[in-house]
Order: sequence, then structure tokens, then C-alpha cells
Amino acid sequence: MTIARLAGSSCSVSRSLAVLGERWTLLIIRDALSGMTKFEAFRESLRVGSDVLADRLNTLVEFGVMERHSYQEPGARAREEYHLTEAGRQLHVVIGGLQIWGDDHLPWPAGPSTERLDRRTGRPVRVAFVDEDGRPLPEEKVDVIHNNGYPSRP
Amino acid sequence: MTIARLAGSSCSVSRSLAVLGERWTLLIIRDALSGMTKFEAFRESLRVGSDVLADRLNTLVEFGVMERHSYQEPGARAREEYHLTEAGRQLHVVIGGLQIWGDDHLPWPAGPSTERLDRRTGRPVRVAFVDEDGRPLPEEKVDVIHNNGYPSRP
Repeated sequence: MTIARLAGSSCSVSRSLAVLGERWTLLIIRDALSGMTKFEAFRESLRVGSDVLADRLNTLVEFGVMERHSYQEPGARAREEYHLTEAGRQLHVVIGGLQIWGDDHLPWPAGPSTERLDRRTGRPVRVAFVDEDGRPLPEEKVDVIHNNGYPSRP
Repeated sequence: MTIARLAGSSCSVSRSLAVLGERWTLLIIRDALSGMTKFEAFRESLRVGSDVLADRLNTLVEFGVMERHSYQEPGARAREEYHLTEAGRQLHVVIGGLQIWGDDHLPWPAGPSTERLDRRTGRPVRVAFVDEDGRPLPEEKVDVIHNNGYPSRP
């Protein structure tokens, strides 16, 4: 895969999904945000074939979402682990938004298996639009403005 | 498709992606957030086949993300249009998060084709975690807590 797959769209939602929107990719990022780094750990968590997982990880490395590092345990061969870059960590609000939306609208009978909590208070957090000073902004105060390049092709 | 496809995972990110994660689905929601309602308009925007588009819209209706309404223009046959439900509108922060992340990390050479602006100031907005009182919370103050059901299967 090359950057060419991004070239067709001026829409940054489409470009983000070109990198992140394949099956498993956002779940890899979910696991990495919980501290997972090893290929085998992702494979067991996702129950996905090694070829597919390697493809998704390669895409994430190629586009700067994850970094690949070698490590070696005593007596074992060298292996690779994967860490989120700063760009990857910035996807936390997107993953958090999907988690909170799922708990609101597709709830699990036994309650949430994962929660995102305010470290200071232990209370659930939300995801919201904020203004440039960091103050929360009601959704109806957010204007969606299309510039010259729109409508874009996906 | 039935709710059964959701039953395998206690993780709400996985459940959200079971409904939202297929190709085109988040782009349909992107367009709907900009006011698009008609089947033909989605089809032209996404350049996707009618069968695939109908499948994605059916899923969104089935899971309460969109509602289907009939309308009829004079002299024409009845057609259907699609509107986001309140649950669907709550995906705006997820779409906004993907747009802003794409503009930050996969920028388009000619600049963003879509911007989300603070209606009061005309300045770009961000997406962030906020606490239960709506105050923004730095990402490092958000704890990810796994409960009994975790690790979940995707």
C-alpha cells in the first residue's frame, strides 16, 4: 500500500479512514492504548490471522500511527513490538468516543467491560467538542464549513 | 444481519464498530451530519453501488442510528430519505475527531476541505475528553479501567 490510496480524497475523514478504517485496525489501537505491544498479544486479543494483523500493523507504521521496535528475551530470538506514536495516542478521543457511544446506545447486558474514568474523581468521562481555549462547546454551536475542495470523493 | 453480530463482544468499541465499522458507513454519517438525506445524494457523494449503500443504510436504521421516511415530489413516485436519530447525531464528536486527526496528521496539500468552527468566534474547534461537569480533561488524567468482562473478544 502506498500514500496513493489517500490521494483521491480532499476529505480528512476519508483520509483518516483510508488508514484506520479497515477491519481490526481501530481495535489494534484500542488494545495499544491499554498498553499492549506484542504481535502475539494483539493476535490473541483479536483472534485474527497473522497475515491480516501484519498487514494492519504495517499500515499503521507506514502512516506514523505506530512505531516498530525490536526486543529480545534471554534465550529467545529477536521479536518486534509496536508502540503508538504521539499521532497514534491522539486517537484516544476517537476510540473513547466510540466506547462511550457504544455504552450509551448498544449497551452490554452485564455493564461496560471498559470504562474511562477521571483519575481525580473516579467518575466517567465524556468526549466533547471544545473551543480553542479548551472550553466545552455544545454540538449545536459547531458549524461544519465546506471549502473549495468539497464535495470530495471518498 | 441481526443483533447477533453484536453478541460476541463485551467491548463497546467492538460493538460500535460492528454497526459503524463497515466500509462507507462512517462516510454516510459524515454526509448526513452535513444535511444529506436522499439515497441518490449519498450514492453520488460516495460513488458506491446501490446494493452496498442500501445494505449500509439498512444497518443504520436497524440499529437506531438513522430513521427512514417516505417523501413524494409532485408527479414523481414515492422515495425514501434518511435522517440521523439523536443517537446518530451523537456520533458527531467521533466524525469530528477523525476529521481533526486527519487534518493534523494526513494533511491535504490545498488545506482542509471541511472545517468545524466555533459558531461564536469562527475559530477551529477540537475534540477532547471532558469530566462529568463538562470541564476539559488532559488525556493523561483519563484512566482506562477494564472490568470483569475484559479481555473481550472482538
